[in-house]
Amino acid sequence: MEKLTVIKVGGKIVEEEATLNRLLDDFASIEGYKVLVHGGGRSATKLAARLGIESKMVNGRRITDAETLKVVTMVYGGLVNKNIVAGLQARGVNALGLTGADMDVIRSVKRPVKEVDYGFVGDVEQVNLPFLADLIHKGIVPVMAPLTHDGHGHLLNTNADTIAGETAKALASQFDVTLVFCFEKKGVLRDENDDNSVIPQITPEAFEQYVADGVIQGGMIPKLENAFQALDAGVSEVVITLAAAIGEEGGTHIVKK
Amino acid sequence: MEKLTVIKVGGKIVEEEATLNRLLDDFASIEGYKVLVHGGGRSATKLAARLGIESKMVNGRRITDAETLKVVTMVYGGLVNKNIVAGLQARGVNALGLTGADMDVIRSVKRPVKEVDYGFVGDVEQVNLPFLADLIHKGIVPVMAPLTHDGHGHLLNTNADTIAGETAKALASQFDVTLVFCFEKKGVLRDENDDNSVIPQITPEAFEQYVADGVIQGGMIPKLENAFQALDAGVSEVVITLAAAIGEEGGTHIVKK
Repeated sequence: MEKLTVIKVGGKIVEEEATLNRLLDDFASIEGYKVLVHGGGRSATKLAARLGIESKMVNGRRITDAETLKVVTMVYGGLVNKNIVAGLQARGVNALGLTGADMDVIRSVKRPVKEVDYGFVGDVEQVNLPFLADLIHKGIVPVMAPLTHDGHGHLLNTNADTIAGETAKALASQFDVTLVFCFEKKGVLRDENDDNSVIPQITPEAFEQYVADGVIQGGMIPKLENAFQALDAGVSEVVITLAAAIGEEGGTHIVKK
Repeated sequence: MEKLTVIKVGGKIVEEEATLNRLLDDFASIEGYKVLVHGGGRSATKLAARLGIESKMVNGRRITDAETLKVVTMVYGGLVNKNIVAGLQARGVNALGLTGADMDVIRSVKRPVKEVDYGFVGDVEQVNLPFLADLIHKGIVPVMAPLTHDGHGHLLNTNADTIAGETAKALASQFDVTLVFCFEKKGVLRDENDDNSVIPQITPEAFEQYVADGVIQGGMIPKLENAFQALDAGVSEVVITLAAAIGEEGGTHIVKK
């Protein structure tokens, strides 16, 4: 199967011109088929504040009321996505910005209200593989914003890690997929105070031990659980690395065994 | 050649939920290939005002400084475009939102500074026919925001009538194109105080006479000039009509002779 790289970059990197330009240079230089998935939370929080809309987060997830949905639609689907697309076009990459609503690429369901009402937040239901694969085979590079739709006319705010993971899993049936989560550190650290203490490889068994020992904790736990799920679903490799190190060796490689 | 309808709708219609829903119902019911081009100026002006950014207009065109470009990128490329796309998906129309940067669909040049410096405003240079035609043949319905790019990483604010006209002209080499400009009146009026005084048909000769007589004036003149240019470039028919009358008889039909 042909190689394809899905790269997920967080908000911080795509929201500052210098780091964005560096990222786009690095991304443009990746050989073969590729997909970029981006966040944009910091810009959304900033715009919301300017508009007098309070940003409420629970467990790192944004509570998305109707006004907040407008903000993230503007920031993720418009400002961040279109600037990345224009920047990639300038670098000879034939990018196409997509939310899940575009070509029905990712359909989701509004998250049911349990302890928390997250509002207009979507849990991914299905990725439209035929359309995505067809575009990719034509040399188009999808640039995916963290927004999906429910098929009934509603956009839904959706976690960018989830978009990347679900897209990688769907594409794994037609491509040899590497999924890269860009991170503000060089990888998963053995010691959070030592930026060079990168764990080069993590297996499911090692993961359980690291969690039991308290080495891996907090937001890194669901990230790694997602990574293992992606491997179980056919993704060849998952890498957690510094955005500035895309395309280089290094980082933490999540492997099945 | 197969029939294709390019419909341009202004800001007012797409910015209010009731008129937007009516439009999407009407648009969804149009048979055959179709493209929707939208504006969004009123929402852009509103958002700019909330952010303390002054909207400056010259001859009905927005002066687009760097901050204003961010606003229109958010409103046109994000809020308005993605809500239309999600609304069409809910109606079984496989919509894909596009700015000119996406798949390099419309490339433009920054308007040269003459009497007025319009800022980040683009004059259309070329429409990427092969990609657009390929999508359309696959049953995808492009939904085009009034934004283009210069190929050097810059998005440019671009008049929606121009986007519609240039897109219609490019597609005319592969399709039998009808270009519909939706308007707040039933068509071009003989008497601006009588909403029922629609001129059913205008030829180039009649147009010159109406302008000489002062019947057609103001912003309608460039609109009709664009319409005649589109006909000269191979578009089969141009119609100016009420948005609520899409797909019905009526309106003003611009014809070559």
